Amino acid sequence: MSDKLFPYLQLLHFTRSVFEKIGCTPSDAELAAKVLLSADLRGIDSHGVARLSGYVRLWEVNRVNASPDIRIIHESPSTAVIDGDGGLGLVVAPFAMQVAIDKANIAGTGWVSVQNSNHFGIAGYHAMMALEHDMIGWAMTNASPLVAPTFSIERLLGTNPICVAIPAGDEPPFVADLATTTAANGKLEILQRKNQNAPYGWVQDKNGNASINPHELKAGGALLPLGGDREHGSHKGYALGAIVDIFSAVLSGANYGPWVPPFPAYVPMPEEQPGKGIGHFFGAMRIDAFRPADDFKLHMDKWIRRFRGAKPVDTEEQVLIPGDPEREMEENRIRSGIPLLHAVEEDLKYLGEKMGIKW
Amino acid sequence: MSDKLFPYLQLLHFTRSVFEKIGCTPSDAELAAKVLLSADLRGIDSHGVARLSGYVRLWEVNRVNASPDIRIIHESPSTAVIDGDGGLGLVVAPFAMQVAIDKANIAGTGWVSVQNSNHFGIAGYHAMMALEHDMIGWAMTNASPLVAPTFSIERLLGTNPICVAIPAGDEPPFVADLATTTAANGKLEILQRKNQNAPYGWVQDKNGNASINPHELKAGGALLPLGGDREHGSHKGYALGAIVDIFSAVLSGANYGPWVPPFPAYVPMPEEQPGKGIGHFFGAMRIDAFRPADDFKLHMDKWIRRFRGAKPVDTEEQVLIPGDPEREMEENRIRSGIPLLHAVEEDLKYLGEKMGIKW
Repeated sequence: MSDKLFPYLQLLHFTRSVFEKIGCTPSDAELAAKVLLSADLRGIDSHGVARLSGYVRLWEVNRVNASPDIRIIHESPSTAVIDGDGGLGLVVAPFAMQVAIDKANIAGTGWVSVQNSNHFGIAGYHAMMALEHDMIGWAMTNASPLVAPTFSIERLLGTNPICVAIPAGDEPPFVADLATTTAANGKLEILQRKNQNAPYGWVQDKNGNASINPHELKAGGALLPLGGDREHGSHKGYALGAIVDIFSAVLSGANYGPWVPPFPAYVPMPEEQPGKGIGHFFGAMRIDAFRPADDFKLHMDKWIRRFRGAKPVDTEEQVLIPGDPEREMEENRIRSGIPLLHAVEEDLKYLGEKMGIKW
Repeated sequence: MSDKLFPYLQLLHFTRSVFEKIGCTPSDAELAAKVLLSADLRGIDSHGVARLSGYVRLWEVNRVNASPDIRIIHESPSTAVIDGDGGLGLVVAPFAMQVAIDKANIAGTGWVSVQNSNHFGIAGYHAMMALEHDMIGWAMTNASPLVAPTFSIERLLGTNPICVAIPAGDEPPFVADLATTTAANGKLEILQRKNQNAPYGWVQDKNGNASINPHELKAGGALLPLGGDREHGSHKGYALGAIVDIFSAVLSGANYGPWVPPFPAYVPMPEEQPGKGIGHFFGAMRIDAFRPADDFKLHMDKWIRRFRGAKPVDTEEQVLIPGDPEREMEENRIRSGIPLLHAVEEDLKYLGEKMGIKW
């Protein structure tokens, strides 16, 4: 990559200043910056600092409340529903995940559905909060409708990610963080910028025809559920995306399906709003509510080593454990810096000038 | 389909008699038969009565305990681990799901991991037990290793299904029951019998090459995780199958990965056994632990109607809600009978003669 590298701390401080400038408390701004930048560190560039000006634009049109009163509105020993009060998802989500962890400490597991929130960055950050407590973490969110269910030309679902983070012993944790589409939107954006074709199964045109043209998405086409088409199991990807939507929004009272408020502030809000804001879903499962954590970790290590050591098709490509690529990326970028596209750098410079913050 | 049709009750009574003959109590035999036949009713023919003689063969080689002492060996307010004592999964699984439901009644949710079990039929039966209690149901299981992780030629995972059943109001429930592979093994078996090619993405040969030959699976090849190859997201299908394996077996103390005992009794047991039997995982989530069940159902109905009414690519194929095809199949087969392949009919006749049960 020939993009310029920026030290993590420089980007963190800049981002924190921006969030303070829109009215976040210093601790909320620090947290939001840390969550946002975790995407850049882990190599999910589409969800990181490149989106900072997008969050500010949402605030400018009064779609983000910088000083929310985030609160539990319904609960049981192992569950809660949280009203994010229109706050940054980057702040609402860690609050909700902490409630899940607190519930799990007492009840064995904790499950939290969130309404009235905004985009929460990467699911991985939130799910991984569970790891240091010897818990399995879950995080899901619905998102701007870009995905057509199998057999449809309408965009009714977001890329609706699922993250499950599982602690291990001597081995690093298992962290699966996956969009329920064949390819995340960020990967399509890379092809759009490079004017390269996509594989079949990523996108369809506005009439529902399979397409290799990544620009079809912006011309009324749609991203496709994991599987791509019916013959390759797209009804399963559609079902998984639907489960995320229902857990995040129908369970909490947020907007779902085609009514999820879009992230780009210039896209008009859907006319109908069956709920409030966007929705998330979090879970924490205390390992020792099932078996002693040390036993579990011993077997997780054995699981991980067996899979990592599996005979590869090609000795150039070893079998990976979910989370391996992101962890390596994080180690590298903490050390060497975070690459930003020139367009992103210019966008951030402009944002800094507008807000009176040194870039 | 030109297969002969058999009344549901005839198959149920025959199956119950077989289970009684191997030593199940009358109530266990009735339950096991009902669970097994639910696969035939819902159109998942590979998991139904066609497998009855397979269960008997496992019992013949002492791999099934017909009178198990199924018990909770670890618990917290919202969790339990159950030892199936080597019983039929068809009996162990409903016991475990009932524990999850009981936990959810008190704690809001209940999560049960099971060790020392056998194959449990279709996941859908167990997850759907939650529906009548106004709960969301989850069921997962690991299974005989047939699936290669992305980049590997080794078969380290089963088709590891996930079922999530979600109640609705006036609409029928949402029931997603999916193998975490591109295609379930049963679909490949149909192609094997017909000597027809499979689409790319279902199977690879023993060297890890993409293949359209469905017979490769029995020649050292492997089923592929949902997605098919890396470019189409197979690392996501692999991660989902891995999550099912870990929740079902590493959390419970069952065997995982390549060490899962194979269903066919003629396949030798793996030399190493890091746990006991095969593993399952169940969950029950009380809707009103999140929001009033009536509100939830109103919005589920709205969700379902919006998706079912989505503009189709082709007016011949309407958008389906997960569970639609299986429910229609069930209504049809209860009325008209269950079709059995001639080979399955012969196998059952032979089983009846061997056990002195009228076919």
